[in-house]
Amino acid sequence: FFIIAHSKNLDEKKPCKRFVLYYHDILFNGTNGANATSATVANRTKLGNFNHGMLVVFDDPMTTDHHLLSPPVARAQGFYFYDMKTTYNAWFSYTLIFNSTEHKGTINIMGADLMGEETRDLSIVGGTGDFFMARGIVAIRTDIAQGDYYFRLEMDIKLYECY
Amino acid sequence: FFIIAHSKNLDEKKPCKRFVLYYHDILFNGTNGANATSATVANRTKLGNFNHGMLVVFDDPMTTDHHLLSPPVARAQGFYFYDMKTTYNAWFSYTLIFNSTEHKGTINIMGADLMGEETRDLSIVGGTGDFFMARGIVAIRTDIAQGDYYFRLEMDIKLYECY
Amino acid sequence: FFIIAHSKNLDEKKPCKRFVLYYHDILFNGTNGANATSATVANRTKLGNFNHGMLVVFDDPMTTDHHLLSPPVARAQGFYFYDMKTTYNAWFSYTLIFNSTEHKGTINIMGADLMGEETRDLSIVGGTGDFFMARGIVAIRTDIAQGDYYFRLEMDIKLYECY
Repeated sequence: FFIIAHSKNLDEKKPCKRFVLYYHDILFNGTNGANATSATVANRTKLGNFNHGMLVVFDDPMTTDHHLLSPPVARAQGFYFYDMKTTYNAWFSYTLIFNSTEHKGTINIMGADLMGEETRDLSIVGGTGDFFMARGIVAIRTDIAQGDYYFRLEMDIKLYECY
Repeated sequence: FFIIAHSKNLDEKKPCKRFVLYYHDILFNGTNGANATSATVANRTKLGNFNHGMLVVFDDPMTTDHHLLSPPVARAQGFYFYDMKTTYNAWFSYTLIFNSTEHKGTINIMGADLMGEETRDLSIVGGTGDFFMARGIVAIRTDIAQGDYYFRLEMDIKLYECY
Repeated sequence: FFIIAHSKNLDEKKPCKRFVLYYHDILFNGTNGANATSATVANRTKLGNFNHGMLVVFDDPMTTDHHLLSPPVARAQGFYFYDMKTTYNAWFSYTLIFNSTEHKGTINIMGADLMGEETRDLSIVGGTGDFFMARGIVAIRTDIAQGDYYFRLEMDIKLYECY
């Protein structure tokens, strides 16, 4: 009846729960308040030319398909910031919030968004409600980036500890 | 000798350790420096009217009862920010720090503070010292909110992984 | 075949993986853009005289020895802020990024940097790639702090869950 430190038995290809959702971020530009889902809280610093230090707080809809206007099945609430002086690169920490007949609960996520890579893995570090004590990986991929004020990420959410 | 992904054996009603503490946050207003325990680091954005983007860094006392002036048994150090344009809603990430004869160590916490709900669950994502490798849930409840500059949260701290 | 809540079997002295790296932080001062690895995103508040609220975003090299100019074996990307009004004290959340022939993957970390103590423990809350689903502890120690614009931390990275 124990956890041992040297276990090697989780199989990356066999999550106990998996679903793919799309994350839509519409950055506030001063005039799009009706549609905006995020806003800049701290402006970029003068270190480099890639938005270093720009920090954005979001409350973004999550949908099951690519369409911004599809009914959201969850919200993503948290923040991201850009952190490199030589290229665009970001860091995220946020919570997915489910409140539907299908799922109630939250999933907590953090990690580096290495924008130079096609897919990037973040860590699921905890969960509540239906996702009580969950751990896992979110593989994110930029689905589209339109100018400075809209981007969409595909999030492939894979739980490896389910209770 | 292994962890398997599909385990269902943690019982939400049977934490291996549990304690209830009260978190006291006194926001700096420019003149209450002697008592203030937190201060605004980034001002609210213009997205909505509910403090969206306001980011607060805190070093708050934790007590075993409701009284602000009771001897603190721990500190809570971290930050929160408001993240919605349509209502008050927040997000927290912080560390509980114990340094007493009873407990030495830290508990690391993050998650959404869905202020519209009576109780909200955050994730305990790690621990150190006496709380080495802990995981669990913190159920928070607003005990009181007095104007803009003082609020108190009840934190029901439940560990499900204890070592 | 399960995890139980009351397990006591992880041994703090026996990580399943361990390595020591050095973290180098060169804060941007307006003129050192070529060398700077971090910059202040939010200025200190007026609460106390110890940089309370000063928030720094970094993309810092990690080396295997003390030398800033040694070839980095990883990057540390994330943020820290100061959080006390009575002394210097900080809080970190960041990702270690490995992209070499030896290691590919990330390690996600958060916790309080209790600067008054010789060593401070942060939590490793997740990992990806070669560090898939890792958990553990990072013990940090200030190796040197030179004025306001350079400091070096020793990070003793200990994983207790390896897959």
